[in-house]
Amino acid sequence: MASDSAQPVLEELDREECLRLIAPGGIGRIAFEDGEGPAVVPVNYAVDGESVLFRTSLQGRLSRSLMTAVPGGKVRAAFEVDAFEDSTHEGWSVLVRGGARPLDDEEKERAVRVDPWPGGEREAWFSLAGMEISGRRLRRP
Amino acid sequence: MASDSAQPVLEELDREECLRLIAPGGIGRIAFEDGEGPAVVPVNYAVDGESVLFRTSLQGRLSRSLMTAVPGGKVRAAFEVDAFEDSTHEGWSVLVRGGARPLDDEEKERAVRVDPWPGGEREAWFSLAGMEISGRRLRRP
Repeated sequence: MASDSAQPVLEELDREECLRLIAPGGIGRIAFEDGEGPAVVPVNYAVDGESVLFRTSLQGRLSRSLMTAVPGGKVRAAFEVDAFEDSTHEGWSVLVRGGARPLDDEEKERAVRVDPWPGGEREAWFSLAGMEISGRRLRRP
Repeated sequence: MASDSAQPVLEELDREECLRLIAPGGIGRIAFEDGEGPAVVPVNYAVDGESVLFRTSLQGRLSRSLMTAVPGGKVRAAFEVDAFEDSTHEGWSVLVRGGARPLDDEEKERAVRVDPWPGGEREAWFSLAGMEISGRRLRRP
């Protein structure tokens, strides 16, 4: 793949490796459609099995867009986490695609804990079920 | 965790501050729609005025999705960069939304330089014109 053997090359990661990489939680990004095209914003997240849980404010556009699901339905969304080193140009990224749905109060109580960094209300909880989980690692051969 | 009053708060950033924050280039993420919902992948980018330039491989799904524009047309996409500190929970994010279009060979020659980290061909160049440029800073009051 690389024409220059000293440059990093991209390798596909399998599902298990992707889930292992995102397991610690922290900050990721959610991509969604709000009627004016794609948008993408950072969120604090946690992983529960093959789903990604995240919290946001009830008033924001992320929340408004994902709340458009009919009861029991899901809205297509994507989640991304990455970690790259400026100094070496090596790193990895993971993409989780699937359907997002809000959690109800009972589910929130049972859910894996997600700690949002910003103060203020973050009372909209969502779960994104990973239908497609893929990732790539960039590293020197 | 610290008490409520010590928690970081979110502040909106103005357009000039957003452009200043993303000016150095490096790694950002492009959100796009590929017919199966939103997706989001990391890219190397550079800033040219109020547009974001990025390169990817001609074969990838990002390239295939953005190439669906009619000649002279654009495809809606979004670009995100962020920088957060795990230790302080402070940081910022910038979102650029607008229309993406491929650059032709003549434009590539004149374009701001974008250096992709991965080896191999990255011969699809795109420009995303920032119709909406917004951002938020998370910091302790």
